[in-house]
Amino acid sequence: MLLVSYNQDGDPARRLGIQSGDTIIDVAELVSGAGSAVPGLGQAPASVLDLIQAGPDALAALERLLTLSVPETAQRPLAEVTLEAPLRPGKIIGVGLNYTEHVAESARTLDTDKELPQRPVLFSKPATAVTGPGKPILHNADLTSQLDWECELAVVIGRTAKSVRQEDALQHVFGYSVINDISARDQRRSGQWFYSKGQDSYAPFGPAIRTADDIADPQNLDMSLRVNGEVKQKGNTRHMLFRIPELIADISAGVTLEPGDVIATGSPAGVGASFTPQQFLTPGDVVEATIETLGTLRNPVVDAR
Amino acid sequence: MLLVSYNQDGDPARRLGIQSGDTIIDVAELVSGAGSAVPGLGQAPASVLDLIQAGPDALAALERLLTLSVPETAQRPLAEVTLEAPLRPGKIIGVGLNYTEHVAESARTLDTDKELPQRPVLFSKPATAVTGPGKPILHNADLTSQLDWECELAVVIGRTAKSVRQEDALQHVFGYSVINDISARDQRRSGQWFYSKGQDSYAPFGPAIRTADDIADPQNLDMSLRVNGEVKQKGNTRHMLFRIPELIADISAGVTLEPGDVIATGSPAGVGASFTPQQFLTPGDVVEATIETLGTLRNPVVDAR
Repeated sequence: MLLVSYNQDGDPARRLGIQSGDTIIDVAELVSGAGSAVPGLGQAPASVLDLIQAGPDALAALERLLTLSVPETAQRPLAEVTLEAPLRPGKIIGVGLNYTEHVAESARTLDTDKELPQRPVLFSKPATAVTGPGKPILHNADLTSQLDWECELAVVIGRTAKSVRQEDALQHVFGYSVINDISARDQRRSGQWFYSKGQDSYAPFGPAIRTADDIADPQNLDMSLRVNGEVKQKGNTRHMLFRIPELIADISAGVTLEPGDVIATGSPAGVGASFTPQQFLTPGDVVEATIETLGTLRNPVVDAR
Repeated sequence: MLLVSYNQDGDPARRLGIQSGDTIIDVAELVSGAGSAVPGLGQAPASVLDLIQAGPDALAALERLLTLSVPETAQRPLAEVTLEAPLRPGKIIGVGLNYTEHVAESARTLDTDKELPQRPVLFSKPATAVTGPGKPILHNADLTSQLDWECELAVVIGRTAKSVRQEDALQHVFGYSVINDISARDQRRSGQWFYSKGQDSYAPFGPAIRTADDIADPQNLDMSLRVNGEVKQKGNTRHMLFRIPELIADISAGVTLEPGDVIATGSPAGVGASFTPQQFLTPGDVVEATIETLGTLRNPVVDAR
C-alpha cells in the first residue's frame, strides 16, 4: 500500500490517503463509506503516524476495505491534490558513507576517511528539516555556496526497537520512502555534520510511504537522482555497506527507535562535491530523487534570502 | 518560577508543579482551587510544554494565582513526589567546545582542534536520550568503556525562533535548566558525535526549569559537577565562547527553533577524558550536576546489560 499525506482545495488540513495509480483514496471517506464499525479499525486513522501507531490490524483492515468497492466520494485525482511529507518523524538518523564508491569520492573531496567504516557512521537531522514533495529546498547564499544532494532510501519505523537482533529487525519496519539528504558542505563545523545537514528544508521526504509488505526486497531497489533532468546519481540499495537489519540492530543497541522515526540509509556515489569541477545547487535548479516503486521526490531550489 | 514535572503515589501520570522551597504546588489543583475562570489562562496547563505553548499571559496568570492563598490541596512535600525530566524536547541542539579550557583539554585528549572554533560547533541528541533527575544513566560495557560527563546550562525555547537577531534572541527563551551531556567517547564514528552522545539516558535533564524572568543574568551562573561527591568540573556560564544570544542567532539562521526545544550550551573543563589517567563512569557511580539557582541534577550510573 502506498500511503500519502495530502491536502486539497486550499484547505491546509492534512489528510491520509492511499495512492492507487493516478487516484488518491481518502482514508476518512473510505472508512466512513463502510458504514458500521470496521473490524480491526477503531476510528479512521487521520495520518500515517496514526496508522503506524494503530498497528498491523489497522493496516490489514484498510487492505480489506480496499478490496470492497471504494465509494466515489473517497476518490480524488492525484493531479488535484497537494502531497505533503508523509509524516513528521520524531527523529531522523542518517547513515554516512554507506556505499563503497561514495566512501571513495568523499575521501577525495570531503576530508573523510579512505577506509570503509567499521561501524555505521551515524548523524541526525531534526524534524524541522523535513519538507514535502514539490516544496522548495532553501538556498541561503549568506550561509552556503556548496549546497549538495544525496538520494537515499528512507526506512520508516513501525514498532519500537530497542536492542533488536538483526534477524528480527525488519519486523520493526513499517515501510519505505525517499529522502534527499541535502547538505551545505561548507557548514560542517569541527567535522560535525548537524548544521550542514540539519537546516530547514534539508530533508525533502516522500512523495509517499510504501508499506513493507509491498516491497519484495528493500535491498534491491534502483535509485537515481537528477538535477535539471541530468542524471547525477545512479545506484541500487543492494550496494549498502551496512544493510537495513544491521543498521537497525546497531542503532537500537544504544538508541531506541520509535514508531515514525526514519533512518536515512546513505547515499550512493555522484554527489555534487565529487564532480570536477564541483557542482552545487543554486536557485532555479530542480532536483528529482527516484527510488524504484517508491516514486520521485521532486523539489525546486529557491533563494531563501 | 521554578517549574517541575512530577508524579506521585505510584501514579505514572505526569503533573505540572511549581516548586517553592520544599513544597511542590500542583498547578491543576491551584487553578481549580481558584474557582471561576482565571484571566489569561484557559484551562490549567497540564505540562511545562502546555504552559510554554499557552504563552506569556498564561505564565503571568499563574504568577498572580501564586500571590493569592494557595489551597492546602495543591501543596505536596517535595520529598513525597518523584520528579521527571521537565519536558520532552522536540530537539536538543548541543554546542561543542564552547568553553576555552575545555577546547584545550579536548584537543589534548579527544582529537579535536587546538584553535578556538570560529563558529559554534553544533550536534544533536534525540528526545529518546532524555532522562529525568534520579533516573539511571545506562552503562553498557558491550558498547563503551569511556562513559563521560559534561555539566551544561540548558536553554529552553519559548517562542519559535527563525533568523532571530542577537539583540532579540533572549525574547525567545522560556527558561533555563541543567543538562548532563553524557558521552561514550569510544562511540564517535568517523568523528561524528551522534551515537556517542545520543544513546538512551545520555541526556539527564532537570530537575526543574526556572523561567527566564527569574534569572538576573544567565551568563553569570556558577556550575559544577561531582562524581561520588568529588568535584570534577567547576565553571561559570560567563566563560562561554559563544554566548546565548549568539547561539540562538547562529542556529536560527538555518534551523528553526520551536517551543520546548533545548540548546545544551557546552561544558566547562574537567571532563573525565581530560584527567591523567582518564576517569570514566562505571556502574555504582553517582553524578551530580549543579547550576546556581537551577538546582542539582543527580543520576546514578547503572549496568544496562
